[in-house]
Amino acid sequence: MNALSKFLTPSRVLVVGFAVLVLLGTLLLTLPQATTDGLGLSFLNALFTATSAVCVTGLVVVDTGTGLTLFGQSVILFLIQVGGIGFMTFATMFAILMGKKITFKERLLLQEALNQVSVEGVVRLAKSVFFISFMIELIGAVILSVRWSFDFGWSKAIYFGFFHSISAFNNAGFDIMGNFSSLTGYVGDPIINLTIMVLIICGGLGFIVLADIKSNRKKKFRLHTKIVLTVSGGLIVLGAVLIFVIEYSNPKTLGTLPLGTKVMAAFFQSVTARTAGFNTINLNDMYETSLLSMMVLMFIGASPGSTGGGIKTTTFVSIILSVLSTYRNESRIVLEGRTIPKDNIQKAWAITTTASLLIFFIVSILSLTERVDLMTVLFEVTSAFGTVGLSLGLTPALSVAGKAAIIITMFTGRVGPLTLAFVLAQKRKNQGQIKYPEERILIG
Amino acid sequence: MNALSKFLTPSRVLVVGFAVLVLLGTLLLTLPQATTDGLGLSFLNALFTATSAVCVTGLVVVDTGTGLTLFGQSVILFLIQVGGIGFMTFATMFAILMGKKITFKERLLLQEALNQVSVEGVVRLAKSVFFISFMIELIGAVILSVRWSFDFGWSKAIYFGFFHSISAFNNAGFDIMGNFSSLTGYVGDPIINLTIMVLIICGGLGFIVLADIKSNRKKKFRLHTKIVLTVSGGLIVLGAVLIFVIEYSNPKTLGTLPLGTKVMAAFFQSVTARTAGFNTINLNDMYETSLLSMMVLMFIGASPGSTGGGIKTTTFVSIILSVLSTYRNESRIVLEGRTIPKDNIQKAWAITTTASLLIFFIVSILSLTERVDLMTVLFEVTSAFGTVGLSLGLTPALSVAGKAAIIITMFTGRVGPLTLAFVLAQKRKNQGQIKYPEERILIG
Ligand SMILES: [K+]
Ligand SMILES: [K+]
Repeated sequence: MNALSKFLTPSRVLVVGFAVLVLLGTLLLTLPQATTDGLGLSFLNALFTATSAVCVTGLVVVDTGTGLTLFGQSVILFLIQVGGIGFMTFATMFAILMGKKITFKERLLLQEALNQVSVEGVVRLAKSVFFISFMIELIGAVILSVRWSFDFGWSKAIYFGFFHSISAFNNAGFDIMGNFSSLTGYVGDPIINLTIMVLIICGGLGFIVLADIKSNRKKKFRLHTKIVLTVSGGLIVLGAVLIFVIEYSNPKTLGTLPLGTKVMAAFFQSVTARTAGFNTINLNDMYETSLLSMMVLMFIGASPGSTGGGIKTTTFVSIILSVLSTYRNESRIVLEGRTIPKDNIQKAWAITTTASLLIFFIVSILSLTERVDLMTVLFEVTSAFGTVGLSLGLTPALSVAGKAAIIITMFTGRVGPLTLAFVLAQKRKNQGQIKYPEERILIG
Repeated sequence: MNALSKFLTPSRVLVVGFAVLVLLGTLLLTLPQATTDGLGLSFLNALFTATSAVCVTGLVVVDTGTGLTLFGQSVILFLIQVGGIGFMTFATMFAILMGKKITFKERLLLQEALNQVSVEGVVRLAKSVFFISFMIELIGAVILSVRWSFDFGWSKAIYFGFFHSISAFNNAGFDIMGNFSSLTGYVGDPIINLTIMVLIICGGLGFIVLADIKSNRKKKFRLHTKIVLTVSGGLIVLGAVLIFVIEYSNPKTLGTLPLGTKVMAAFFQSVTARTAGFNTINLNDMYETSLLSMMVLMFIGASPGSTGGGIKTTTFVSIILSVLSTYRNESRIVLEGRTIPKDNIQKAWAITTTASLLIFFIVSILSLTERVDLMTVLFEVTSAFGTVGLSLGLTPALSVAGKAAIIITMFTGRVGPLTLAFVLAQKRKNQGQIKYPEERILIG
C-alpha cells in the first residue's frame, strides 16, 4: 500500500486518470446503443474514438454525425468535456458540490493538473476554471442555437449549438454535420465563423490566462499572460496572412470566394490549425505550402493549461529566445524586463525535442504500414500529436497498426511528452553527489 | 581601413573566403573549355556547381562525367580539395612553403577555421591536417587506381582513382561515372566499396580526431574523440541495420542481391548518407522508411572540423544528453566522468534549431516553386543542408528559384548555421549591465 502510494506521484495519477477515462469511453462506445447500425464500434475503433475525444483531438474513423447515435454522441461530448477541462477539475467540483473537504494530497494533484508552481489557491482556481468554461460554453451555445434555428427545428438547433460550442471551446474539433464535412458548409457564414473562432481562441489561451484576464481587468498582467496573448495573436495573424496569400487564386479553395469570405476563411483555417480541428475549406485542395504552414501552427499548438495541444506557445517562444540569445552571445534571456529562469528553457528544449522525435518515429512507422505519401502521413501525425484533428483523409483508411500508432500519439500529445517522460524515467541514484571536471567538446 | 579590419572578424573572413572561392569557381566553369558542348555552363548552373563543389555537397545539375571536360573536372577537384580541407589550412601551407611567417592574426583565423579553443599549436595542427589528408587520399587513390586498371587503361584508371579518392575523403560525393549513376555499377565490388567507405569515414571524423588518434596511439583519447568515434560507429551500424531490415526483400534494391552484397550495400548506403553522397543502389527504388532513416543520418551528418556537413555528431549527442538529463531532473550533463559545459549545450541547441528552421523554410519555398511531392523536396533540402549530395532526382529539374534556394542551403550547411548567425547577428549594447528579476512562465 505504501509502495503504491509512493508509486502514484501526481503526474502518474494524471496519466492513469486519462487512461481510465479512455477505457471507460471505449467500453461505452462498443455498446450496440452507441452506433446507428446497432452493432456498436469494434474495440479498436472505440478505443481510437474515445482517445480522440478524451484527448480533444477530433480525428475520427467513424463519422460522428451519421455513424453514432444520440447516445454515442453524448458519450463523445462527455469525454470531450471531462478531457478538455481536466478530470481533476471535474472531480474537485464534484467533491465540493458533495460537501467534501479537499485534502492536501488532492490539492497537490490539482496543482500538477493545473500546471501551477504552488499549491496555494488551486481549489479557487479550479472553481474559476469550471465557472469560466461553463459561462463561455453557454454563451457560445446560445448564439449558435439561435443561428441554427433558421436552418433546423429548435430542438436540433439547440443540440447542435451545445455540441459544437462545447467541442469548439475544448478545441475538440468533433462535429455532427455528417460525412466528415466539418464546417465546410458554412465557409461564408460570419456568425458561425466568428462564434466558433472566439470559442476556440478562448479555450486555447489556457485557464490561467483566462483567470488572469478576469481578475486583472486593466491592471498589470503576469509575464505568462503577456507572452500567451502576444504569441497567440501573432501566430493567428501570421497563419491567416500566409494562407490568404498562398491560396488567394487557388480555384479550389479561396479563388472563387468574395474578398470578405476569403479573409474570413483564411483566419478560420489559421485559428483552427492551432489545435481546434474544424475546417471550412477542404484541406486536400490546399497547396502544399499552406499545409506546411498549418503544420507549424499545429506543432506549436495552444497555450499551457488550456484545452489545446502542441508543444505550446510559451515553449516555442522560449526556444526562439534562447537561440537568439546564443546568436548574440548573451547568457540570460530577458523579456519585458524579466529574466526567464534557466529550467524553464531547459524544459522547453526537452519538450520540443521529444515532440519532434516522437513525430518522426511515428511517421517512420506509418511510412511502413500505410502506403500513402509523406505529406499525408506527416500531416496526420502532427495533427494527432497537436491534438488538432485535421486530416488529409487518412484517418478512416488507417491500418490496425496505424490506428494504434495514432492512438499513442494522441495520448502522448495530450498528456504532454515531458509528463510522460517524467512518469517513465527512472531517477539515477547517487549521481548528484560527485562533481565531475568539465571538458569542452567541439560543437557544429 | 580600421573599420574594415574591425568588421572582418575571423568568422566573417571565413564566410567571405568561402564566397570568394565559390565565385572563382563559378567564373572558371562558365568558360567554354569547361563543358563538353563547348559553351561553358550558364551563370546559374556554374554558381550551383561551384557552390556544390566548394561546400563538398555533390548535388549536380550537369553530369560531371559526361557534361564537363577534363578542365571542368579539374576545377571541381580543386574546389573540392580546398573547400574540404579548408582554404585557411591551404593558405597556411602555401605560406609556409613560401617561407613566410604566420602572423598572430592569421593564427586567430586558423583557430576559428579549425574550430579550436586556443590559438596555441594551430599551425602545427594545420600542417598535420594537410599531411594526414594527403596521405589518406594518396593511399585511397593507389588502391582505386589498381582496381580500375582491370577495367580501363592505366591513365584513365589513375585519373579515376585520384578523382574518386579525393571526392570520397572530402565527403564530396562528386563522381565521373556518367549519367548521374554514381557508384551503382559497383554495388557488389568489395574493393571499391571498402576503400570508398574507409575514405568517407576518415574524412568525416574530423581532423582534430584524426590528429588525436595519430598522436595518442594506445594512450587516452580526449572526450571529444571518444564521443565522435562512438557516435559515428553507432550511427553507421544503426543505419545499416535499418536499411538491411527494411530493404531486405525489396526486389528493386537489396532483394535480388546475394547476402554478402546485401550487407555491404546496407553499410555503404548508411556510410554515404553521413554526408558523403555516393550511392550504390538507386535511391528512388528504396522504401520511404529507409529514406527517412537516411534523412536522419544526413541531418546529423559528420563530426566537427571534418570535411562533412550536418549538425554534427557531437551536437546530436549534446541535445540528446541534455534532454535525458531534463527527464531525470539532473542539472549537469555528465559523460565518461566529465561534465559537458553549459555553453557547449546551448550552442548545440542553437545549431539544431537553426538547421531545422532553415530546412523547413527552404522546403516551404520549394513546395511553391517545384511541383513535386514532399518526400522528394525534403530529401533534397536535407541533403543540401547536410552537404550530402544524395538526391531523388530533383536537382537537374530544379527551377531557377529552386536552384537559388538550394545554393543558399548548401552554403549555410557548409559554413555552419551558427557561424552565419554570428556573422549576421548584431550585438545588443548595454544589455549585459542590468540584472532583471526572474519571472517563471508555464511551459508545455
Ligand atoms: K482538436
Ligand atoms: K557530400
